[in-house]
Amino acid sequence: MEKIKRNERLGAMTRILTETPNRIHTLGEFCDLFGAAKSTISEDIDIVAASFSRFDLGRIETVAGAAGGVRYRAIPSRERSSRILSSLAERLSQPGRMLPGGFLYTSDITAESSTAQQMGEILAARYYDRQPHFVLTMETKGIPIALMTAKMLDVPLVIARRDSRAYEGSAVKINYIAGGGNERIETMALARRAVSAGQRALIIDDFMKGGGTLQGMVDMMREFQAEVVGVGVMIATAQPQVKRVAGVRSLLVLEGFDQTTGSAIVKPSKEYL
Amino acid sequence: MEKIKRNERLGAMTRILTETPNRIHTLGEFCDLFGAAKSTISEDIDIVAASFSRFDLGRIETVAGAAGGVRYRAIPSRERSSRILSSLAERLSQPGRMLPGGFLYTSDITAESSTAQQMGEILAARYYDRQPHFVLTMETKGIPIALMTAKMLDVPLVIARRDSRAYEGSAVKINYIAGGGNERIETMALARRAVSAGQRALIIDDFMKGGGTLQGMVDMMREFQAEVVGVGVMIATAQPQVKRVAGVRSLLVLEGFDQTTGSAIVKPSKEYL
Repeated sequence: MEKIKRNERLGAMTRILTETPNRIHTLGEFCDLFGAAKSTISEDIDIVAASFSRFDLGRIETVAGAAGGVRYRAIPSRERSSRILSSLAERLSQPGRMLPGGFLYTSDITAESSTAQQMGEILAARYYDRQPHFVLTMETKGIPIALMTAKMLDVPLVIARRDSRAYEGSAVKINYIAGGGNERIETMALARRAVSAGQRALIIDDFMKGGGTLQGMVDMMREFQAEVVGVGVMIATAQPQVKRVAGVRSLLVLEGFDQTTGSAIVKPSKEYL
Repeated sequence: MEKIKRNERLGAMTRILTETPNRIHTLGEFCDLFGAAKSTISEDIDIVAASFSRFDLGRIETVAGAAGGVRYRAIPSRERSSRILSSLAERLSQPGRMLPGGFLYTSDITAESSTAQQMGEILAARYYDRQPHFVLTMETKGIPIALMTAKMLDVPLVIARRDSRAYEGSAVKINYIAGGGNERIETMALARRAVSAGQRALIIDDFMKGGGTLQGMVDMMREFQAEVVGVGVMIATAQPQVKRVAGVRSLLVLEGFDQTTGSAIVKPSKEYL
C-alpha cells in the first residue's frame, strides 16, 4: 500500500486513540492502517504523548506485554481539575438556583455534554486502578455524568430505574430510603440481565444529601453479588456530615444557601482546592 | 514563547478540535497556543483535514468570515454509517432479546457509550443545517443517544421527566397518549426555565412505535413556543406504518419477531442500506 507521511499519521492516530479512551490499540493496527514499520509507529506515539503531556490534554500510555499496545486516558492534571471545578462552583453559586426545600437547580449544567464530559474525566481518573466492569447510576439526572465516566473507562453504563418497565424483562426490585429531611420509602429496579455475579461496579450519581439513593444502589449490587469498587458524585451537601454510604468521593460541596440573595454556596472539594 | 514543532502541534490540535465538535476555534487561538504564524497554522489544518478525509474520521472545516475559524464535525461517510448500523442491527437480531408484549431488550446497547456516540454522530450529521439550540429527549433510555447527539452539535441536552421533581422548580406538565397497542394517558413535565420561546429544538429518542411520546414532546415544545426542527430515533417499528408524528427519521427498523427463535428482525433504514 501507499506510504502515509508522518504529518498525516499524527492527526489520524490522535483521533483514533482519543475516540476510544482506555482502549488498548496494538501497534500492528496502526502499522496496517498506515503501511509503516513498528519502530516508525512507536516514534509517532512518542511525539503525540509528548505533545499531550505538554498541553495537559491527557495521557498517551504504552502498555507492555502480550496484550500490550497504546491507549489514551483523559486524566486531567490537578491544576486543570481545580480550574474546571472552581469555574463550575462559581456557576452553581449564581443567584436564582435555590429551589424550595433546600434543593439546587442543576439540570441545565448536568445535561451539558461538555460539562458532563469534564466531570466524567475527573471522576474516571480516580478509578482506573479499580478496573470496574461497568458504571451504575440511578435515573435520571446522573445519567450524563455517569455515561461520560463510563466512556472514559471504556465500560458500559447500567441504569437503575424507579420502576421496572415492561421493555426491560425480569428485574430485581428493592426498597430504599430516599430524601434527607423528608424520608420516605422508594423502589429501585434493575433488569436481571444487566449485571453478572462477581463483576466490579463503580457507582456514579449527580447529587448526595443523606446518601439514601447511593445506599440503595450498594444494596442492589449486593443482590447481584457484584462488588462496589467506588462511589463518586458531582455534588455532596456539607450537612448531614454523616452519610449512609461511607467513602463517597465528591467533586463539589454544597455548603448551604445565602437566604438573602438566594445563592448557593458551592465549593470544590478540599482535595481540588 | 518557545516555538512548537509541527509534529507536536498536529496531535494537540487534533485533540482540541475533536474534543469540541461543531465549535469554531479561531486561528488566533492556535497561534497563541503554539507561538506560530497564521499561515503555518493554516497549513497544519490542511494536513489534519486531508488525513481525516482519507481515513473517514469526520470533517475538519474552515469557516470564513468575521466569526470564522476551524471546526470539527463528526460526519461519518455513508459507507461508515451503513457498516455501523448493519452491525448494530445484527446484534439486535440475536436470539433472546424478545420481551413479553412485543418489546425489544435494548438497554445494554443504548447505554454503551461508544454505541451511543456512533448513533449521535449519525443523527447529528443530518441536522447540522437546521442549527438546533438544544436536543430534547424524554427520560430514560434515550438519554445516552440524545446526549451524544447534543455533544456532536455542541448544544445542551434538555430532559423531559415523567413527573416534575421538587428539585427542578416550576414546570410545565402535559398529558400525552403512550403505548401502541395498550394506549394510556401519561404525564410529561419540563422545567419552565429549561427552554426559551423562539428556540429551535431537535427531538431525539431511542424507540418509536406509535409515536405517542414523540407527539408529547412536540406538544410540549408548542407550550414553550419553541420550533421543532427535526425528530430522530434509533429504532422505529415497521408497524403501525402511520405514526402520530410525521417526518421522523429512524436509523433502524424493527420489522417484527421470529416467533420460533425469539429473534427480532432489525434492519438499517432504507437510506442506510
